[in-house]
Amino acid sequence: MTKQELVDLIQDMSLEEKVNQMLQVVSSFYSEETVITGPMKESGFTKENIAMAGSAIGALGAEKIKKMQSDFIKQQPHHIPLLFMLDVINGFRTVFPIPLGQGATFEPELSCRLAEVAAKEAAVSGVHVTFAPMVDLVRDARWGRVMEATGEDPYLNCCFSKAMVKGFQGEDIKEPYRVAACVKHFAGYGAPTGGRDYNTVELSEHTIREFYLPSYKAGIDAGAAMVMTSFNTIDGIPATGNKWLMKKILREEMGFEGVLISDWAAIEEMIYHGYCSDRKEAAIEAAEAGVDIDMMSGIYSEHLIHLVREQIIDEKLVDEMVYRILELKNKLGLFENPYKDADEQKEKELILCKEHRELAREAARKSFVLLKNDGVLPLKKEQKTAYIGPYVDNRNLLGAWSFIGQPEDVTTLKEAAIKWHEANNTVYCQGCAVLGNDIKLEGFTEQTEEEISKELEQKMLQEAIQAAAKSELVVMALGEHRLQSGEATSNANIQIPKVQMELFEKVCEVNENVVVILFSGRPLDIREISHKAKAVLEVWMPGTEGANAIMDVLSGEYNPSGKLPMSFPYCVGQVPVYYNEYSTGRPYVEGKNKDRFRSKYLDIPNNPLYPFGYGLSYTRFSVSLVKLSKDTMKPKEKIEASVMVKNEGAVFGTETVQLYIKDVAASVVRPLKELKNFKKISLNPGQSEEVCFTITEEDLQFLTQKGKWESEAGKFVVYIGTDSTTENSSSFILND
Amino acid sequence: MTKQELVDLIQDMSLEEKVNQMLQVVSSFYSEETVITGPMKESGFTKENIAMAGSAIGALGAEKIKKMQSDFIKQQPHHIPLLFMLDVINGFRTVFPIPLGQGATFEPELSCRLAEVAAKEAAVSGVHVTFAPMVDLVRDARWGRVMEATGEDPYLNCCFSKAMVKGFQGEDIKEPYRVAACVKHFAGYGAPTGGRDYNTVELSEHTIREFYLPSYKAGIDAGAAMVMTSFNTIDGIPATGNKWLMKKILREEMGFEGVLISDWAAIEEMIYHGYCSDRKEAAIEAAEAGVDIDMMSGIYSEHLIHLVREQIIDEKLVDEMVYRILELKNKLGLFENPYKDADEQKEKELILCKEHRELAREAARKSFVLLKNDGVLPLKKEQKTAYIGPYVDNRNLLGAWSFIGQPEDVTTLKEAAIKWHEANNTVYCQGCAVLGNDIKLEGFTEQTEEEISKELEQKMLQEAIQAAAKSELVVMALGEHRLQSGEATSNANIQIPKVQMELFEKVCEVNENVVVILFSGRPLDIREISHKAKAVLEVWMPGTEGANAIMDVLSGEYNPSGKLPMSFPYCVGQVPVYYNEYSTGRPYVEGKNKDRFRSKYLDIPNNPLYPFGYGLSYTRFSVSLVKLSKDTMKPKEKIEASVMVKNEGAVFGTETVQLYIKDVAASVVRPLKELKNFKKISLNPGQSEEVCFTITEEDLQFLTQKGKWESEAGKFVVYIGTDSTTENSSSFILND
Repeated sequence: MTKQELVDLIQDMSLEEKVNQMLQVVSSFYSEETVITGPMKESGFTKENIAMAGSAIGALGAEKIKKMQSDFIKQQPHHIPLLFMLDVINGFRTVFPIPLGQGATFEPELSCRLAEVAAKEAAVSGVHVTFAPMVDLVRDARWGRVMEATGEDPYLNCCFSKAMVKGFQGEDIKEPYRVAACVKHFAGYGAPTGGRDYNTVELSEHTIREFYLPSYKAGIDAGAAMVMTSFNTIDGIPATGNKWLMKKILREEMGFEGVLISDWAAIEEMIYHGYCSDRKEAAIEAAEAGVDIDMMSGIYSEHLIHLVREQIIDEKLVDEMVYRILELKNKLGLFENPYKDADEQKEKELILCKEHRELAREAARKSFVLLKNDGVLPLKKEQKTAYIGPYVDNRNLLGAWSFIGQPEDVTTLKEAAIKWHEANNTVYCQGCAVLGNDIKLEGFTEQTEEEISKELEQKMLQEAIQAAAKSELVVMALGEHRLQSGEATSNANIQIPKVQMELFEKVCEVNENVVVILFSGRPLDIREISHKAKAVLEVWMPGTEGANAIMDVLSGEYNPSGKLPMSFPYCVGQVPVYYNEYSTGRPYVEGKNKDRFRSKYLDIPNNPLYPFGYGLSYTRFSVSLVKLSKDTMKPKEKIEASVMVKNEGAVFGTETVQLYIKDVAASVVRPLKELKNFKKISLNPGQSEEVCFTITEEDLQFLTQKGKWESEAGKFVVYIGTDSTTENSSSFILND
Repeated sequence: MTKQELVDLIQDMSLEEKVNQMLQVVSSFYSEETVITGPMKESGFTKENIAMAGSAIGALGAEKIKKMQSDFIKQQPHHIPLLFMLDVINGFRTVFPIPLGQGATFEPELSCRLAEVAAKEAAVSGVHVTFAPMVDLVRDARWGRVMEATGEDPYLNCCFSKAMVKGFQGEDIKEPYRVAACVKHFAGYGAPTGGRDYNTVELSEHTIREFYLPSYKAGIDAGAAMVMTSFNTIDGIPATGNKWLMKKILREEMGFEGVLISDWAAIEEMIYHGYCSDRKEAAIEAAEAGVDIDMMSGIYSEHLIHLVREQIIDEKLVDEMVYRILELKNKLGLFENPYKDADEQKEKELILCKEHRELAREAARKSFVLLKNDGVLPLKKEQKTAYIGPYVDNRNLLGAWSFIGQPEDVTTLKEAAIKWHEANNTVYCQGCAVLGNDIKLEGFTEQTEEEISKELEQKMLQEAIQAAAKSELVVMALGEHRLQSGEATSNANIQIPKVQMELFEKVCEVNENVVVILFSGRPLDIREISHKAKAVLEVWMPGTEGANAIMDVLSGEYNPSGKLPMSFPYCVGQVPVYYNEYSTGRPYVEGKNKDRFRSKYLDIPNNPLYPFGYGLSYTRFSVSLVKLSKDTMKPKEKIEASVMVKNEGAVFGTETVQLYIKDVAASVVRPLKELKNFKKISLNPGQSEEVCFTITEEDLQFLTQKGKWESEAGKFVVYIGTDSTTENSSSFILND
């Protein structure tokens, strides 16, 4: 359709029809069984409204969606098709590592490919839009949804935001196998007070703009078709009704012209926030902020017609919003082909195909972070090895946002290990439950775990201890329950469940060669584990091919290369902890200045247990001193910063060389260090390579006191190293 | 001096003389022994500058100060006297409970009297200005300096801010026994990220204005002569150089006309913040923000003269700053009497006099909060009682900011207990050290504790266990070390030292009647203690007469009445936790809505262990339903909200009846509840009294979306109860 045709179409639509384009409903409303009962009717979900809705959430399956769409179009007055939207996060049926694990790859191009494959599986299943990527910056490991983020760094988040949008959307969402992306949650959702999901966000405007907004902007600049509002308030006003945020920042400053959708019932929640006194007021506030689609509150359908008739809302505003929605449908080609890529045959061919599984395996092994290794890894085939822990024979490796993935698709670690080991050399025991009997995930409809009797618990523990005692080495597969991270899973305690810690301690008592494979959706306090285990490999929630990927690493087939995208706190009393904190007036350097009046804790170090950018390899890389091409720079000039990196060990390996910059003095206090670039290089034993970064004036820009993104003359320190604590540096002066 | 005389005096002063009025130095510079060495000279502290300085910090003692002043005046070109400033926080030599404890009295008039007495002792000792009150709002128990605050509530903080300023200053600071007050730390110092002292503050502008600024404003409105800058940044800019904060907010909006002083070396610290590239730039930034006095960085003295000569700084600006300083000296009457109240005879008469000690005892017992009492308190004289713990025979009850107070002035709990008990009915043992051997307070020059050998440790423990086993009841005096709270004492772990927890547990194993007297400078995680002890009495750092006050309460002589001014977190993973949090869109009510997608933790409750406003009594009070004089209100009208309060128990007691208001819907998200008034009433057993609050439109005002303090029409819920969790409420409508 041409623009004019779209405009004409809107002209021809009744007000009721237009308003209902802005309604999003759950797809189950289109099942024959669904009966709209009283309360639902009152809240805007009348049969008539649903019959004219603009989009549906939750459906998948080519056959099902095609049927729904075809039935729907027939009765829609202008035969306008539905948009089918779904949460396709880290994969569709083929499940990739959780986004936090993807962050650890430091390889946005890989995430682009993952998004591409996820889009492909989703598209052939009939999905048009995915509610991804979540690009919220995260600093507090208590927040369960950190698993859906790519970490604490704005630059890294920008890279992933761009890459994922590109991966889902390609160059043109009309093309086959593409879905529209939705950047979320605008804005600042990743910083809830106390790490408690949906809680108030307290950030200064400067910090919001400089740290939190860039990743949304990057996704928008990459062409994201949609943006989702966040549940939190910004400066006391819920994002969903926040005109400053949505009109000034999102539309004016960022130039976003796509569809803005509320998060689930977020328009209605402005009432519970005490921001709106009733549903009518909520409709006004959301509409005036420019929210185009009302996800599942029914408020628009219930009130916008009257509001237009009462001349409280201008019909032109409605037309603009409808235009954006229809424009998205048009961009997807739905007016020409309302089924887009939905195709039962393609579903069979593509979903979980070999190529997708291989990619899942590649992504998983690249996402693993080797936190410690006292020479016990890689494993030796001939060594008598016990695999112990609740993740040894467990298919729940998919993470909280992978409800399309099926456990039955997943290989267990035991299955993968058996394939590699000499069969009669290994033993496998569960040892304990994931959660133990003391933890109940209240409010979760999904069954979390079967209760284990005290006797069985003891038996499992004894069996594990005996197995450990008889083995030369123990691989312990421990971690959080899959449902302990994800949405609405804030935890005040960020250690693995007690029952597993007890198992770990007992095993350590009888065997000193313990390797821990850690499954988690968040950074954890692993002081004890890190102290007692000989090696620790963080594997996040690794996805469909997670177990095979773990064996790739344990066996040495693949040399681990992941780097932490988020600091692992020393303990929960240290959160929020992040490498790019602002300089204080009383800096403390561990071990250096012992005087009292420094910004530090009395009882713990300031530094996290494992910092951002950190991760070991089976080999060792040396990095030479930083060489700068010159020591002064003018705004339009460039500086080359280079180091020689050498593989000093005995095996092939990959290192992520990281460039950080510190602006020594500026009109606004600057972070201690900021990641500005990184390069992954792979070297054979003994091989050296020069890694060269080009620093431009753009890399030196920040939001100055004048409120502009610009650089300021002065001294800059350039750090190049293999994690964020590197002190390997050189400096230059930027002249005016 | 008249204004004109002050202006004339400034006219007559050399630029050098003027600039040095803005210099504050440590008083030891005026001791004969002090030699100014090289580095000091370079940083502005030349002999010449010091000889013309405007103020000195740290001196006390009438004789000493009179001598210093007299020597100084002789050589100052215009014989302008020095201002002597000192940290007089919770008392001078007679030490009162720490400010957090004073907050627990809910009796600002009492703090006014305490400040008055502190001022008296300080004034006769030669002090002119105290760096108090600290009115920073605090929500994070990890921050050590919460001990110097009055808590988490803006209204309560305002009451104390006003009262303390009035107490120090009286109606006219020229009057005898008055000192000038300095409201600190402007602004937001109480909210460092991660609870780490001096760290970055992240707050939205709305929250700063509505929660954090009012208590400073209250102190300024009460006439505070001075304000101190804070160490932190606000929106990325250090407070000490923050023009928005100091010019727009402090001077313009708040109308502050007094002296603005930097915190210790805070002007210099703008360099470490990376906000200024050198000392010269720091001088410019601070001067332009309007900081009048440079506390101990020497930067003004080093640079302002040249800056004026180079016409970078206008001499008029210097004149304005000097005017404010001289005006303060004039208000104190120092031009007429440079020694003010310094008087050796009065020092002897007043300091630690009976009246002051009695007031200290009254304040202490009123500050104690009874957190739990399963019928074991008050004590029975005839009961065989063991007093166990490192605070049993310990004189360090003064808190971190009481360096003028002397341990030898302090009665120990043992001494106080012996007086009350039948002598051969009690036993006293230390049980363990305060800290134990594993904690070292690194960086503290003051000796914290003698090391105890393993053998002695075991012996002490065994002795305590035996004593406990043989007694009918155990009073355990446990808590934080005095130096674990205060400035630069952030703790990630907010439990009492491990060695004491072990002692507590062992004692509980042999005696089920354990009463814990808890000494602390902050809210602590006391889940274990609260679970196992039969009674818990929070006594903060109670001051000179703390032990006698404790016996007043243990004996039943005084019925405890304190209320928590700050929430006691469930655990550190819950911080920051405070009762007046903003409403979320997905509210969770404990036990009520069990669905998953609520703002809550999976593993702990949302509520603190003990909430704001909470505290028990030896009697029980009932509060009737809330009665409102009407159910609608117009802006200029008032509503009377009343309840009948009845003492339902058997002993005389005091209750703090608290009025909270909730604005149900507003243009900015409102707190769940806000304290708006409170009344302390004392009732005999069986006695009832009506408690009536007048609600005016002013009580309903907040900072609206328009940026004005005003009320908005709509529904308001009025809660009246005995702590912040009360659901006893009624509601009314405010009409336009």
